[in-house]
Amino acid sequence: MTMTSRVKVVEVGPRDGLQNEATVALAAKVDLINALSNAGVSYIESGSFVSPKWVPQMADSADVLAQIERHEGVTYAALTPNMKGFDAALAARADEVAVFAAASEAFSQKNINCSISESLARFEPLMAAAQAADIRVRGYVSCVLGCPYQGEVPIAEVVRVAEALYEMGCYEISLGDTIGVGTPLHAQRMLAAVAEAVPMPQLALHFHNTYGQALANIAACLPLGVATIDSAVAGLGGCPYARGASGNLASEDLVYMLHGMDIETGIDLPALAQAGQAICQQLGHKTRSQVAQALLQQTSAE
Amino acid sequence: MTMTSRVKVVEVGPRDGLQNEATVALAAKVDLINALSNAGVSYIESGSFVSPKWVPQMADSADVLAQIERHEGVTYAALTPNMKGFDAALAARADEVAVFAAASEAFSQKNINCSISESLARFEPLMAAAQAADIRVRGYVSCVLGCPYQGEVPIAEVVRVAEALYEMGCYEISLGDTIGVGTPLHAQRMLAAVAEAVPMPQLALHFHNTYGQALANIAACLPLGVATIDSAVAGLGGCPYARGASGNLASEDLVYMLHGMDIETGIDLPALAQAGQAICQQLGHKTRSQVAQALLQQTSAE
Repeated sequence: MTMTSRVKVVEVGPRDGLQNEATVALAAKVDLINALSNAGVSYIESGSFVSPKWVPQMADSADVLAQIERHEGVTYAALTPNMKGFDAALAARADEVAVFAAASEAFSQKNINCSISESLARFEPLMAAAQAADIRVRGYVSCVLGCPYQGEVPIAEVVRVAEALYEMGCYEISLGDTIGVGTPLHAQRMLAAVAEAVPMPQLALHFHNTYGQALANIAACLPLGVATIDSAVAGLGGCPYARGASGNLASEDLVYMLHGMDIETGIDLPALAQAGQAICQQLGHKTRSQVAQALLQQTSAE
Repeated sequence: MTMTSRVKVVEVGPRDGLQNEATVALAAKVDLINALSNAGVSYIESGSFVSPKWVPQMADSADVLAQIERHEGVTYAALTPNMKGFDAALAARADEVAVFAAASEAFSQKNINCSISESLARFEPLMAAAQAADIRVRGYVSCVLGCPYQGEVPIAEVVRVAEALYEMGCYEISLGDTIGVGTPLHAQRMLAAVAEAVPMPQLALHFHNTYGQALANIAACLPLGVATIDSAVAGLGGCPYARGASGNLASEDLVYMLHGMDIETGIDLPALAQAGQAICQQLGHKTRSQVAQALLQQTSAE
């Protein structure tokens, strides 16, 4: 296992980020996604086809996908919890879709009101439809380093759920530290265990920064060979389990670290930071990216 | 080289932190240091004996050292740039003193108006006086991963300055990423190089979090065997080279990570976070510790 020389950054700001922020105008979402594409981001989770009753922030995902400029080589993906969502995503020309399951039984029950096994079984028709439509499906596993309800989550459970999603046909499994409680050795051990069941090139890290640990955990995992990492520009999205605290790792902070380690991302960092500034102005709050803050202060000092 | 099972956390909040904040009342500083001692912090940089013209926030350091409750086993240290400062620190019964030099020639000239070599030579009488008084001297090296004026700083220069301070009699050398620009591989390479000239047990890391990289850099350096790390409760102190941006790494975030890695610190994390909250209330701003923010939100939710 050797360190990768290139990381695919999966930008989740327009979905995982904005679904935990105040609702912004359709035009602002379209501008954000276009700015991300222009900054060299190659994978953008652009919306979610869920009930607007549960996630009103994502009600206009079809319009978002209709209005963005699609860049060649960029994947515009959408989250689809069920067949209805999948059909809508397909109609909106999402390039890929994503499904999710929890590694914590307590979280699965509280979040989607069914067991982990039931949640996996429910995805079967969607997986079949995606295969028929030649649409790739990404699988998210939540609570891989801890759960807001049950606390500790056994690594064996993470392996089991990741393997199940992979065997159902997900081409990539994103391992989510949903509440950001993980620390480097735990993250390393979890990733190493999952990589025995799912090949490392099919694994991604999705670490939240609620306790400031996300980059440290990623730095600890990179030597294991992981090469796909999720993050959100400007650190969009708070933590629904600790309101006021941070959620997603800021893409700017991740890209800064990777470039500093001579790991390519294809992303133009100043352009990425500008995309983050623009959406924060729409949201009316400061960026949660330390790098963006430092770059801004430098610019204003010059 | 193996990972340590215990880290000495050097708390620099009352000095490196508060010297970059608005001036707080003497009683608040005394309360802060007492709260840190009560939380199990074993080393507290408690003040600075510099000209109040340059650092008005530290003008009452003698009063601080006179009024704190001294706990057995806790070291109360002070920064002393010259003999006058050293004499004052000795009179105030500082347990230890600290001196500083830059690894960057440009920084040395701009910051203290002399070359690195001149700055080292000026410490010679202080080192002799400290030896005579049986007072230990800690040495800080600034700009070890980059300089706000010259940009890159060669690792060989860091090694040279660290070795010089060690040979002059400093018992511990704290390697400072003054502007927080470092990334994990650079930090690792720098530490490994310095450790060839100064034994690892005599080295400390002092990484600022301006670009969000501090914990990642520390996580990358821990496997090399480093066992002393500087941080500031609540992330006290901004970055003087990028106003509005973060400076010191928050002690809470560091301790959270270390405990998560089964590395002992002797520190009670909730008590540490409370100490941070109290001083932030005095300063009138939010904590810069992600862990403290998350703990606060949890508490208010319960």
